[in-house]
Amino acid sequence: MTHESWPAEATFAPAERDAVYKTIFARRDVRRFVSSPLPGDAVERILLAAHHAPSVGFMQPWNFIVIREPRTKKLIKEAFLLARRQEAEQFSGERKKLYLSLKLEGIEEAPLNICVTCDSTRHGPAVLGRSLIPQTDIYSTCCAIQNLWLAARAEGLGIGWVSILSEERLKEILRIPGHIAVVGYLCMGYPERFEPKPELETVGWLDRLPLRDVILNETWNGKVGGY
Amino acid sequence: MTHESWPAEATFAPAERDAVYKTIFARRDVRRFVSSPLPGDAVERILLAAHHAPSVGFMQPWNFIVIREPRTKKLIKEAFLLARRQEAEQFSGERKKLYLSLKLEGIEEAPLNICVTCDSTRHGPAVLGRSLIPQTDIYSTCCAIQNLWLAARAEGLGIGWVSILSEERLKEILRIPGHIAVVGYLCMGYPERFEPKPELETVGWLDRLPLRDVILNETWNGKVGGY
Repeated sequence: MTHESWPAEATFAPAERDAVYKTIFARRDVRRFVSSPLPGDAVERILLAAHHAPSVGFMQPWNFIVIREPRTKKLIKEAFLLARRQEAEQFSGERKKLYLSLKLEGIEEAPLNICVTCDSTRHGPAVLGRSLIPQTDIYSTCCAIQNLWLAARAEGLGIGWVSILSEERLKEILRIPGHIAVVGYLCMGYPERFEPKPELETVGWLDRLPLRDVILNETWNGKVGGY
Repeated sequence: MTHESWPAEATFAPAERDAVYKTIFARRDVRRFVSSPLPGDAVERILLAAHHAPSVGFMQPWNFIVIREPRTKKLIKEAFLLARRQEAEQFSGERKKLYLSLKLEGIEEAPLNICVTCDSTRHGPAVLGRSLIPQTDIYSTCCAIQNLWLAARAEGLGIGWVSILSEERLKEILRIPGHIAVVGYLCMGYPERFEPKPELETVGWLDRLPLRDVILNETWNGKVGGY
């Protein structure tokens, strides 16, 4: 299977369309992994899916650092623990207790970690579509992460995005040059299971907003009320 | 069809997995639309897919301003033309000629435009997972855009992301408050056709990078060579 296998004008049968929605709705942020090894061909397909994200001016500003060594993961885990201690101070009382009870990463258990970066200098200073909103290269990189996440879900693999990390420390550990931005640090593996809902919803950290509350008509002042 | 229809532990049949890859590889940035109206139920499914993106601390920081009025689109189109004139000055000679020959938006032709915003203040100052990397709320919003884009493709609808726009002018036209960030301005409609490749690749603006060139092993210095 390659990206050349389907004609671009492909239409989608109802079952195919449903499969796309199924992936989107069944995707979870996974923090509990089993140790089963990952099939190399699946990982390659998933990375190819990420690489086929949209990018501003066709810049493809991303890199994927694929991390397998327990030694590297251990350093990242230590950086996470430090960052979590720091973040916990933002909360107090019951909320802090709940925060500290949550499992927020699976760095060492996941067979693979992927650090996704963005190189703003790729292809020189002038990028089509990027001169007015320079951070669009970062936006493209986020789209690549979402492609990666959905492809993984369709392969039965879970992804957890760890954002409780110091970018500076990450760059030190992974020897990433100063001008490169770290956009996401992902853990990937077979999950213990896919939860029916986001864990932060299940434990009552925050509720899912009703769709109608996030849709506005014509302007910011447009009455809320769904499409 | 709702997000409650599938059990979370759903596995994917090979045909379903292939449908997800098909959507990812056949997705295009569309700038040429036909005027056919959009089915309301498809638009609602697409927005629901966007709303089911991952978000840092389950923050769901996004809003979707759905724009239909020709008067609003005309103002946005004028803002685009001004921004394009400005951006064209970055290029010279043949490159500038090529830039100016490209169709880079379909603002007025697309039946629907969607402005996607991010509210960093949603749920108060302390957000789980966001204290060390504050821009993760923007990253979440980009993931929502990619969900939206893929769901649209599966519905046979095209999306074009217009980034040649001044954020300040957009906020003025759509009356968006100062503390809200505009992340993406999207045009949506049935496309004249889905191109086999990104247009910037077809016209020779830039080449697709080989996958092996964007994968690194273990650290930034890890030898390049694919997974």
